[in-house]
Amino acid sequence: MTPYRFADRAVKLEKRKPPDIPKASISFASGLANPEELPQLAEIASQVLTDQRTEVLQYGPVFGLQALLDWIVEYSREDGIKVDRDNIIIVNGAKHGLDLICRVFINPGDSVVVTSATYMVALNILRGYEVNFITIDQDDEGLNVPLLQALIQDMMKKGEPLPKVIFDIPDFHNPTGITLSQRRREQLVHLAERHGIIIAEDDPYRRIRFNGDDIPPVKSFDTSGCVIGLGTFSKMVSPGLRVGWVTATADIVKRISVFKSDGGSCPLTQCIVYRYCSEGHFTEHVEKLIIKLRQHRDLMLECIHKYLPGAAAHAPQGGYFLWVQLPSHMNSDLFLSVAQKHDVSFYPASAFHAMDGPANYIRLCYSYYTLADIEKGMKRLGLAYDECRLFDNSKGNGLIAR
Amino acid sequence: MTPYRFADRAVKLEKRKPPDIPKASISFASGLANPEELPQLAEIASQVLTDQRTEVLQYGPVFGLQALLDWIVEYSREDGIKVDRDNIIIVNGAKHGLDLICRVFINPGDSVVVTSATYMVALNILRGYEVNFITIDQDDEGLNVPLLQALIQDMMKKGEPLPKVIFDIPDFHNPTGITLSQRRREQLVHLAERHGIIIAEDDPYRRIRFNGDDIPPVKSFDTSGCVIGLGTFSKMVSPGLRVGWVTATADIVKRISVFKSDGGSCPLTQCIVYRYCSEGHFTEHVEKLIIKLRQHRDLMLECIHKYLPGAAAHAPQGGYFLWVQLPSHMNSDLFLSVAQKHDVSFYPASAFHAMDGPANYIRLCYSYYTLADIEKGMKRLGLAYDECRLFDNSKGNGLIAR
Repeated sequence: MTPYRFADRAVKLEKRKPPDIPKASISFASGLANPEELPQLAEIASQVLTDQRTEVLQYGPVFGLQALLDWIVEYSREDGIKVDRDNIIIVNGAKHGLDLICRVFINPGDSVVVTSATYMVALNILRGYEVNFITIDQDDEGLNVPLLQALIQDMMKKGEPLPKVIFDIPDFHNPTGITLSQRRREQLVHLAERHGIIIAEDDPYRRIRFNGDDIPPVKSFDTSGCVIGLGTFSKMVSPGLRVGWVTATADIVKRISVFKSDGGSCPLTQCIVYRYCSEGHFTEHVEKLIIKLRQHRDLMLECIHKYLPGAAAHAPQGGYFLWVQLPSHMNSDLFLSVAQKHDVSFYPASAFHAMDGPANYIRLCYSYYTLADIEKGMKRLGLAYDECRLFDNSKGNGLIAR
Repeated sequence: MTPYRFADRAVKLEKRKPPDIPKASISFASGLANPEELPQLAEIASQVLTDQRTEVLQYGPVFGLQALLDWIVEYSREDGIKVDRDNIIIVNGAKHGLDLICRVFINPGDSVVVTSATYMVALNILRGYEVNFITIDQDDEGLNVPLLQALIQDMMKKGEPLPKVIFDIPDFHNPTGITLSQRRREQLVHLAERHGIIIAEDDPYRRIRFNGDDIPPVKSFDTSGCVIGLGTFSKMVSPGLRVGWVTATADIVKRISVFKSDGGSCPLTQCIVYRYCSEGHFTEHVEKLIIKLRQHRDLMLECIHKYLPGAAAHAPQGGYFLWVQLPSHMNSDLFLSVAQKHDVSFYPASAFHAMDGPANYIRLCYSYYTLADIEKGMKRLGLAYDECRLFDNSKGNGLIAR
């Protein structure tokens, strides 16, 4: 066979492959669900497969099961998002939703705005659409909208094509944990409306808030249809069920459905999620989850203080992750290789940068392990940290030569 | 908000939207599973969610569950396909697999070969990648490979870029029911190898054979890696579970995984399928399915003879569909509109044509309804047929004016 003639996007992605999940017997890398808190669904599944067998094992409706759509409508309205059933389409998780947004909006070379550190899987999806990244820093209020505004003004002056999409995770940002302030949310919607830019609001952690007051979703400030919401049951019920949704204008939802070539998302898992949520387990479950994850966050923050002197992390008001700032000379890729020798791992800063960015950050996930294992893993990380601190990696000597 | 700036592919697809499912109280349109034959999975699901709760509700491995991959390896080897576990990736149904093949191989404007009538959902997926269609007729042996060969020779002479992908459904073709002969399969692989073309072999119905001898899959003749197989449990177990797979070289499988942005396909449904198949239900279930669907096929063929005089359909050796040739003057779009007045429906020829094609064909699905309802629906179709035969629709008068 002559060599394969791959698509341009595949050739480009080959050059910038997503990082492998850094392995270790204690890995703080992936945002896994806490195993103890995965719900008991055996009985519900058995009921669904008895009562609704011929519905849930058949092809499902393209937009999703009506009952679940109605539940999501109510859920969204609680957050001040004005939607009806025809504004929602069920997808196989929020990542699938982002992929579909790209299909509908992105031509190769289109610009997309991301925060300067952002969710690595979103970066991979966007790279697959050959986007041109525009990165914007975050401050304490999240994505720096005034900075973005200035940049857009400048692009307009120069006659450059404006970005098509702004991707952000406003609540307990992944990886930085920062929550976008209400003022910024309003500014962002205003900016997007004015310039015909789509905001893709990824909001998986919203209900997992440990402290502070809820801020309405970006989508709740949208009156013109410029915000597309990405929702998921992954963090609130179970990631394995692969049930998420997209919230948008009816026109956009219809266009997404035309590209959703999977014969309808799985009705069985939709029905399980629906019954679980509608039978009143949802609120109680999320409350338990918050209590547990808050303890995990607090312990991991303590451990940073104890085992990683000189490192710093803000306490996020919710979510799964800590974004840890290491001393400026520490390169997190090298730190990872040392940590793995101590059988502990995490994602280094490089995974989260669209282009270049400071290397002295790591993302630690506190959701998965027990308190005892968090302590154990953080101790190991401390040992690796002590080794790394002795060397000035920024100058290229140090651990590699060791 | 200024108007949305959609991607080119979305604008083009808007102009050539997939047809709506033609509705009626008896609809022979969609290839739905027979409700009686949907398996009893309540107990298996309950067991899986008890024994493997923390595995099946967590994110799954990108390539799929190992146990299921191993089962598919064995299943493929029974058909003479030489594969190992790293040649397979689990996807959310065969449609999802085709979509991923396009992501890896298709640039806008690339040529793709399809049979002149082909599966309408595949057409929609391919259109979403802005392909240039090359259509090849089928004869009794299926896709006319000598014709394709001549065309490729001609393209080479003219220095035109050769097609990247050939899409076919070799067993009990959808919609035509024709099975590609062994000779043609070998020729097709030979042709594809020589010119570096990928064959996407969609094989959902293979095990649902009523009569005649098995012919090895196109993939079984592949020694160079030019064939990508698309498999699914939709027709053999349940379409709602959304479990399918792609078989290809390890390199292609890896590239597909990079574009599969769904956080791993649902481990719960994979595990249910695996247990169902590995606990020995699979063979028995498929045998029952064959007996039932053969009766359905036979009855529908009889009904065509009885209620649609002058129409003709070959008896497919397996699968779900009859491709019915109407008298040459009958336009199947108009026939559909009359049929719907009689509360019965089907897909007309136009749904299956990449470009233009003869309008006097319809696809009837015999899988879903009971024998009694097939008879009832076909009687209704006969009434509509009688009305339509009185008019010469090909000349543009007739029913529309009526």
